[in-house]
Amino acid sequence: MPLSCPGFRFGAVHAGIKSGRTLDLGLIVPDAPAVGSAVFTSNDVKAAPVRVSRAALVRARGEVLAVVVNSGNANACTGTEGMADARAMVAATARAVGAPRKNVLVASTGVIGQRLPMARVERGIGAAAAELGRRFEPFAESILTTDRAAKTARKRVGGTRLIGCTKGAGMIAPNMATTLTFVCTDAKISRAALDRATRRATEQTFNAITIDGDTSTNDMLLVLASGASGTPVGVKAFEAALTDLLGDLARQLMRGGEGVHHVVTVHVGGAKSTAAATSAARSIANSPLVKTAIAGQDPNWGRFLSAAGNAGIGLRPERVDIWLDNVRIVRDGQAAPGRAVEARAARVMRRPEYTIRLDLSAGAAEGRYLACDLSHEYVSINADYRT
Amino acid sequence: MPLSCPGFRFGAVHAGIKSGRTLDLGLIVPDAPAVGSAVFTSNDVKAAPVRVSRAALVRARGEVLAVVVNSGNANACTGTEGMADARAMVAATARAVGAPRKNVLVASTGVIGQRLPMARVERGIGAAAAELGRRFEPFAESILTTDRAAKTARKRVGGTRLIGCTKGAGMIAPNMATTLTFVCTDAKISRAALDRATRRATEQTFNAITIDGDTSTNDMLLVLASGASGTPVGVKAFEAALTDLLGDLARQLMRGGEGVHHVVTVHVGGAKSTAAATSAARSIANSPLVKTAIAGQDPNWGRFLSAAGNAGIGLRPERVDIWLDNVRIVRDGQAAPGRAVEARAARVMRRPEYTIRLDLSAGAAEGRYLACDLSHEYVSINADYRT
Repeated sequence: MPLSCPGFRFGAVHAGIKSGRTLDLGLIVPDAPAVGSAVFTSNDVKAAPVRVSRAALVRARGEVLAVVVNSGNANACTGTEGMADARAMVAATARAVGAPRKNVLVASTGVIGQRLPMARVERGIGAAAAELGRRFEPFAESILTTDRAAKTARKRVGGTRLIGCTKGAGMIAPNMATTLTFVCTDAKISRAALDRATRRATEQTFNAITIDGDTSTNDMLLVLASGASGTPVGVKAFEAALTDLLGDLARQLMRGGEGVHHVVTVHVGGAKSTAAATSAARSIANSPLVKTAIAGQDPNWGRFLSAAGNAGIGLRPERVDIWLDNVRIVRDGQAAPGRAVEARAARVMRRPEYTIRLDLSAGAAEGRYLACDLSHEYVSINADYRT
Repeated sequence: MPLSCPGFRFGAVHAGIKSGRTLDLGLIVPDAPAVGSAVFTSNDVKAAPVRVSRAALVRARGEVLAVVVNSGNANACTGTEGMADARAMVAATARAVGAPRKNVLVASTGVIGQRLPMARVERGIGAAAAELGRRFEPFAESILTTDRAAKTARKRVGGTRLIGCTKGAGMIAPNMATTLTFVCTDAKISRAALDRATRRATEQTFNAITIDGDTSTNDMLLVLASGASGTPVGVKAFEAALTDLLGDLARQLMRGGEGVHHVVTVHVGGAKSTAAATSAARSIANSPLVKTAIAGQDPNWGRFLSAAGNAGIGLRPERVDIWLDNVRIVRDGQAAPGRAVEARAARVMRRPEYTIRLDLSAGAAEGRYLACDLSHEYVSINADYRT
């Protein structure tokens, strides 16, 4: 069933930013002003479109009439000329869809440090605006860079729909592939409630995955609510559905990463606080020694425990139990007894998806992080090929 | 010229902890009580010998009469039995050299999660104590694990000598090779001055290198001063010499790391504070995307700039210049003009050692970090071989 969402039209064309005939420019155009909430990269090095969109969202008080996205060029580290290019994309989109410039957002992804081919981009914007339709899929394709396939998801909560797409081979791809995520919903929801739901849902999903711990210059996650469903949505239920949707997309992002063979949930429980649990889970998920152990399918529990110990949360190792799915490999900080344990643990690590679970026996809080393997392909993709 | 230091005798034997006939147990025995200062791992998961030695150093007020070190087994994650084993190593050494137990330190490195073969260890301690001599080299060899060769250094400052050794293929080796470092000096110096010099010299050397950002359960750096030189040493001059010595050893450690082909100094200057400079340098040195770029000899400056932007120091990218040795590849946050620049930068990156230098144009502070490449060998060593 094709994806669509009441209150939104989409466009996508091959503008000629990327070579070949692939789609590389997309538009989202709400029928009426939509409420927009976004989370942007925390990197101090913010690409021009990130700076332009962040300012626009504040100035327009979250009222959005168009979003333009290009792939193939990140418009990052491009100086004042790059800022002018991002503003020119906004102006061209505003003209093409007949909206004030202040209500137009822009996002870019692709190579860093090169100017955009603005003549092509502007022609592409005009062409995309001329063929707007209800189907979401072409837009979801137009934002891809080195991704193997489009990543989309849908959810329903009561009479409200959410559809979303994401792109990025994590940070795995050459030239620092960005994560861009767009969600459209027909929810009737206030800006304050949407902001809060977006922030909280992102914290648990896109901010809790790691391929290599780096954050790109262009990362952006945008949620647009058209209100076309007509009836106000329950805020809690909406947040839960949004979290589900983003979790689904984040997992697809990890799975689709080039060089990724195992997607591993690191679940830390029995912690003093959620912050401590998440910090330990992040430390494990980011450890190169853990990631190579995942690649080597080696239940090297000393690495898991030591990585947790590096989180600086006052871990008491003698209290820690560790499971791989349902196999307990560590009890009270030491190897769990029994010869068969390690063989069973090694079998779990052959699975494409499994959970490394730590019980810290220090409290009742828990936290999660999605991790993956550090493989030869990762090194090949990022070192051997000239970007 | 063989290494030795007035006031110290050394011993080393094959106790049978490692297979083959390699030395795996060593002793340092001062002729009279030496002043000892140490820096231990900051990991919450501290191996038994680290816990025992840290407590002993406090209790004995830094007075050290013997140090026993074994390789081949880290005595980490071994529970209360492991603590008893570490204490038994101390007791056996105290008996063998005729010293009170409270003045004996212990260090271990090797596999995690396995009990020490205590009968062999205790026989080895007796054998090593029976053949103490002035040569440092056999001791330096006895502490190695997967290292390709012993790493030693010497310095002189006025009438004072320092000799030192280190081990560890960084954190690169299977089963989380520990860094152990031992320095012996005949300096006449107070405990307070030695503590301060050790802490400060470590901060600039062993705490400013990274292979994969992990910290082991067993890391320990110990400086022992015999006072045998007779005349008090200038504290500033001693600290400078100790920093030189540790810097030399740290660089050898990086160079000798398996899978390391490039040792790169990341030098961040023009920063608001030393903390900010060091933080940006650390962020660059730890970034997997930077490390794969170093491996691929690819002057992908967007990765360097973005990694600095992830340090959270309020970087202003439009002010940043980046050099690879003497080649400026970035000016004011953008590609430096000129076609030849990138080719020249790529040539610099073929060198086994070079510097990535950032000028932030935000102040006068600077900081340094030693980084290396993330290569196929790293993945092979840590993933493909069963540890």
